[in-house]
Amino acid sequence: MIKIGIIGIGRMGKIHLENLSRKIKGVEVLSVVNPGDEGQKFALNNDIKNVSNNINAIIENPEIDAVVISSPSSTHSEYAIKSAKAGKAIFCEKPIDMSLEKASETISVISELNVPIMIGFNQRFDKNFSKVKDEISKDTIGCLRNLHIISRDPQPPPISYIKNSGGLFKDMTIHDFDMARFIMGCEVVEVFAYGDCLVNSAIGDAGDIDSATVLLKFENGAMATIENSREAKYGYDQRLEVFGSKGVIKVENPLKSDLNILTESGTKSDRHLDFFMDRYEASYLEEMKCFVDTLKNNKSMPVSGEDGLKAMIIAEAANRSLIENRSIKVNSIKIK
Amino acid sequence: MIKIGIIGIGRMGKIHLENLSRKIKGVEVLSVVNPGDEGQKFALNNDIKNVSNNINAIIENPEIDAVVISSPSSTHSEYAIKSAKAGKAIFCEKPIDMSLEKASETISVISELNVPIMIGFNQRFDKNFSKVKDEISKDTIGCLRNLHIISRDPQPPPISYIKNSGGLFKDMTIHDFDMARFIMGCEVVEVFAYGDCLVNSAIGDAGDIDSATVLLKFENGAMATIENSREAKYGYDQRLEVFGSKGVIKVENPLKSDLNILTESGTKSDRHLDFFMDRYEASYLEEMKCFVDTLKNNKSMPVSGEDGLKAMIIAEAANRSLIENRSIKVNSIKIK
Amino acid sequence: MIKIGIIGIGRMGKIHLENLSRKIKGVEVLSVVNPGDEGQKFALNNDIKNVSNNINAIIENPEIDAVVISSPSSTHSEYAIKSAKAGKAIFCEKPIDMSLEKASETISVISELNVPIMIGFNQRFDKNFSKVKDEISKDTIGCLRNLHIISRDPQPPPISYIKNSGGLFKDMTIHDFDMARFIMGCEVVEVFAYGDCLVNSAIGDAGDIDSATVLLKFENGAMATIENSREAKYGYDQRLEVFGSKGVIKVENPLKSDLNILTESGTKSDRHLDFFMDRYEASYLEEMKCFVDTLKNNKSMPVSGEDGLKAMIIAEAANRSLIENRSIKVNSIKIK
Amino acid sequence: MIKIGIIGIGRMGKIHLENLSRKIKGVEVLSVVNPGDEGQKFALNNDIKNVSNNINAIIENPEIDAVVISSPSSTHSEYAIKSAKAGKAIFCEKPIDMSLEKASETISVISELNVPIMIGFNQRFDKNFSKVKDEISKDTIGCLRNLHIISRDPQPPPISYIKNSGGLFKDMTIHDFDMARFIMGCEVVEVFAYGDCLVNSAIGDAGDIDSATVLLKFENGAMATIENSREAKYGYDQRLEVFGSKGVIKVENPLKSDLNILTESGTKSDRHLDFFMDRYEASYLEEMKCFVDTLKNNKSMPVSGEDGLKAMIIAEAANRSLIENRSIKVNSIKIK
Repeated sequence: MIKIGIIGIGRMGKIHLENLSRKIKGVEVLSVVNPGDEGQKFALNNDIKNVSNNINAIIENPEIDAVVISSPSSTHSEYAIKSAKAGKAIFCEKPIDMSLEKASETISVISELNVPIMIGFNQRFDKNFSKVKDEISKDTIGCLRNLHIISRDPQPPPISYIKNSGGLFKDMTIHDFDMARFIMGCEVVEVFAYGDCLVNSAIGDAGDIDSATVLLKFENGAMATIENSREAKYGYDQRLEVFGSKGVIKVENPLKSDLNILTESGTKSDRHLDFFMDRYEASYLEEMKCFVDTLKNNKSMPVSGEDGLKAMIIAEAANRSLIENRSIKVNSIKIK
Repeated sequence: MIKIGIIGIGRMGKIHLENLSRKIKGVEVLSVVNPGDEGQKFALNNDIKNVSNNINAIIENPEIDAVVISSPSSTHSEYAIKSAKAGKAIFCEKPIDMSLEKASETISVISELNVPIMIGFNQRFDKNFSKVKDEISKDTIGCLRNLHIISRDPQPPPISYIKNSGGLFKDMTIHDFDMARFIMGCEVVEVFAYGDCLVNSAIGDAGDIDSATVLLKFENGAMATIENSREAKYGYDQRLEVFGSKGVIKVENPLKSDLNILTESGTKSDRHLDFFMDRYEASYLEEMKCFVDTLKNNKSMPVSGEDGLKAMIIAEAANRSLIENRSIKVNSIKIK
Repeated sequence: MIKIGIIGIGRMGKIHLENLSRKIKGVEVLSVVNPGDEGQKFALNNDIKNVSNNINAIIENPEIDAVVISSPSSTHSEYAIKSAKAGKAIFCEKPIDMSLEKASETISVISELNVPIMIGFNQRFDKNFSKVKDEISKDTIGCLRNLHIISRDPQPPPISYIKNSGGLFKDMTIHDFDMARFIMGCEVVEVFAYGDCLVNSAIGDAGDIDSATVLLKFENGAMATIENSREAKYGYDQRLEVFGSKGVIKVENPLKSDLNILTESGTKSDRHLDFFMDRYEASYLEEMKCFVDTLKNNKSMPVSGEDGLKAMIIAEAANRSLIENRSIKVNSIKIK
Repeated sequence: MIKIGIIGIGRMGKIHLENLSRKIKGVEVLSVVNPGDEGQKFALNNDIKNVSNNINAIIENPEIDAVVISSPSSTHSEYAIKSAKAGKAIFCEKPIDMSLEKASETISVISELNVPIMIGFNQRFDKNFSKVKDEISKDTIGCLRNLHIISRDPQPPPISYIKNSGGLFKDMTIHDFDMARFIMGCEVVEVFAYGDCLVNSAIGDAGDIDSATVLLKFENGAMATIENSREAKYGYDQRLEVFGSKGVIKVENPLKSDLNILTESGTKSDRHLDFFMDRYEASYLEEMKCFVDTLKNNKSMPVSGEDGLKAMIIAEAANRSLIENRSIKVNSIKIK
């Protein structure tokens, strides 16, 4: 039985709490800290007895084996270090910290303490993307040459969110950077980015872009392109296509239904699943199952702190490329 | 809060118990009766306190508002009547009884007692099939002219099962007969059936067929064809296609993944979901939600006892058509 | 060099003339007889020197090796027999004659004269349907168990056409009867049919039906269903699906374009090809190439006179089933 | 009646000759010059009387209204200028010349002589791509934001061809550059390119790349990505996808057949059409019909000399980006 404490019961915390308490065997949620009023109610409804506003309710509880950190990003680093010092295994939502420097320091500390940490890149656990990885391992499409990722949100977040997001590359593309590394099984060495405000000029006024195309070059010569947009009127769009010496694998969007309707205007099929809460619902459960399973079996974490850092460094390179209008070598990004 | 007792904790009972106790709000499972050893364990794991081998633990419990009957088919009728006499609302798995006569009598008794009963034709609650119904209501394809249903199991059940199944039409096609009435919104007036043993001659030796094509004629002149097979090596196949004056709606099989793999031999997509436990998982939950919701709001049951009887009568007509090699009028089937 | 005469330059004659004179090598069209005014112009535009209203221009021309009979159905039999007596190989549009008796006699005469005859069931030469046949030969889907054919015209022909058509089964379903025999590689032993007027009551007033579902039983126990309609608002619909012990082959409709358009209402793909002139354009060429190739290589004809007769007999059985509302054995149909 | 002379009867010349002499009305091919032995035979088989090795047979023939230049690239410029001076309208295969400078001069001369010229970017006339353009004109997907083009050949050409090809961007990507301008209806202002030898190192030894990803920025801020490969084991791949404020249009590859085969391993569909001779067969005909139609109706040419130059300039910018590893402004490319 793995005993777990959850730090932060917002949108993500609720998902993890529900998964851990109802859907995963051999695990018990002992404490929940820092919930708001609504989070508190949610925890009680899920039979969590120990609900507190004090982080020590988790840190100082010797029964707790592992923590799930789903509090606001600005607190990840502090809570992760505290948990590590208390010897607790860590599942931490991305990013470790908005500052690359602080994120790197945090990972170093945790690493020295020899505490396992897993970063919440849930999309790796999506049944479609993980099957792509399996097929690649089975050499179904041979040597990888090209990857194309499309990631478009249904509508932009509020401007207030944009202002604190760290920018498109760190907030949204970061998932695609991690996916690119995951799928290609190889490191990115160079980054080039174009970006603009094509959706809403208020996003530009807030100092960000809403549309981007990023080109990645991998150490083995392979290339990737990423297309991002903060808006897609036709629905949440999360696809990828990988091209190898023997073939291509495409991941299409799951649809709301399996109907085809034929009328005078042609054949119509249904819309995509609405947003990440639907599209990735199962991946959050798989991710957490995997965290628990890794702890139980003393394996190494499937998404490491290093993985978290590397995606951030690529995002930083993309930012610099956008400003300098040239290709940026990833190893030219200095952490401090 | 609706209080429910579950009679029988086999394959279906477990599904209902899990749905009612974990996934549906405003409902509580008070008792479970007639479980085997495994069912008993399952109930305890789901925090059901009142587990018994005595049907009276439910029937005589005044707190219980409704029963879910998922015991063996031969007991449905007895338990349904007992529950009705105790004034409890009933959800009953199909068939009400293997004998048309007894099924009809049971429905009459329940009807006279004015107790609500819902029959477990879960496929009506599948997101795809219910969306077809919605689209038809919105007149998307105009007047209905033709329906084609394909229903094929991945592999035949054991011969022992076949022997007690009541035959292909009553065991398997019955779902399709109900679906045909549901989709067309109109009664079947005539039935013609071809059938044979094309899969396994042992099924023939057991007195049944394993392959059938059934033709239905509706009161408005529309027609339907049903294709059944006890075996489909390529996977569980559950499709339908309805043709109307303005268009066609097709329901395709949901697939295990959304990958397309292109290699020298063409493009490959994934297999269908394995069997009804996967394909109809969500429909069992929707069905039970609907039962609970109907009780709470005092509405009339979405699948009535009458619906259960009518599908059985069509099955009986199909049986007779197979024997007599001619078209059978549904109103020529006498219940006795 | 095969020298050919064409009898009748209507809609089909023009297609054959164009194919034979421009697109097939090693063949020359020497004469054309019985063209109307428009046909005459068409022939001259295609550099046919010998245009006549006298059948003897073909029959008595010793240079001509083969005739293509695409005149009105009522004349097929007469011209076929005259051609056979003159020793000319015959390509004859279906039907050989509207009367089963006369068709049978015609085939007998030709057979006794030992003259090769091919019947114009062009759909066998469609790239899709012939590929289905290839895959079946390669045992891709194992033993065949079920066939489902959908054949729907975009809109009904004029009532005047209906009146002289011989009825739905002989006019429209006849292609499907031939296709069923072709795909299954096996003879039909029994037929059951439902039919009605669901499209236009004027068709009923003219003594015909516009909608039908036909069930076929083959000598090996396999079954087929055919769905016909004289109207399909969503476009010409010509599909089939064959189910075997190892899998399924489906033929979908070719579309006007390969576009998918995603908007707020979902994904839309294009309409089907408009009608048989588009959908089967290539099959008419393949058919004629095959006729020429067969002549050159002294092979036996790919669609025999016998094939023409057998489809007519099944149509006759379907007619009788519709009237008598029971299953009709094909061998109970007496030709005279 | 438009009278045409064809210069060069190689692979492309044959296609044009066949289309002009057999499939397009109101046009006559009077002369063919510079055919090889095989081309000569081909011309005679198509009833061209005037076959010559002397360009003057066309230039000095006052009856000839227009020329089709499909000789080797190195001769395009010379023949185009000669034809223009003789007042003949010109259809010229791309490129006008391998040298940007010479190409530009040629276009200037022709422009001063006020002679119509059309460049052979046939893909614009493909039914799929031209339908995309139509849908965009109808505002189906709103303001365009992103374009993604995939263009992969089934296998690399011989090294000897590579050596004289002008490099991947001028030989292969040039079609995609033109397509990007055509679809977006807007000029490219900036280009960035990654490229490598991932298919065959002998291509690198010959001084070229075989794999490339190119990023384009348009004057309105929209972006495009182009993926190229000289090899695609799964078949010739020619797709595009355009994203706008209201939706997405995708062009999929036409397939060899419309079959879906379902077996234990999932569903398989057919391969793509083999190569450009199949995929673009119809587009060559449409292109030539459009050329003839434009001449007859005195309209302006649908693909101008300017279009030919602009695609070359983008290719030049891509080359420079590859060398300098930075984004290149298109207006920084000096023609001389």
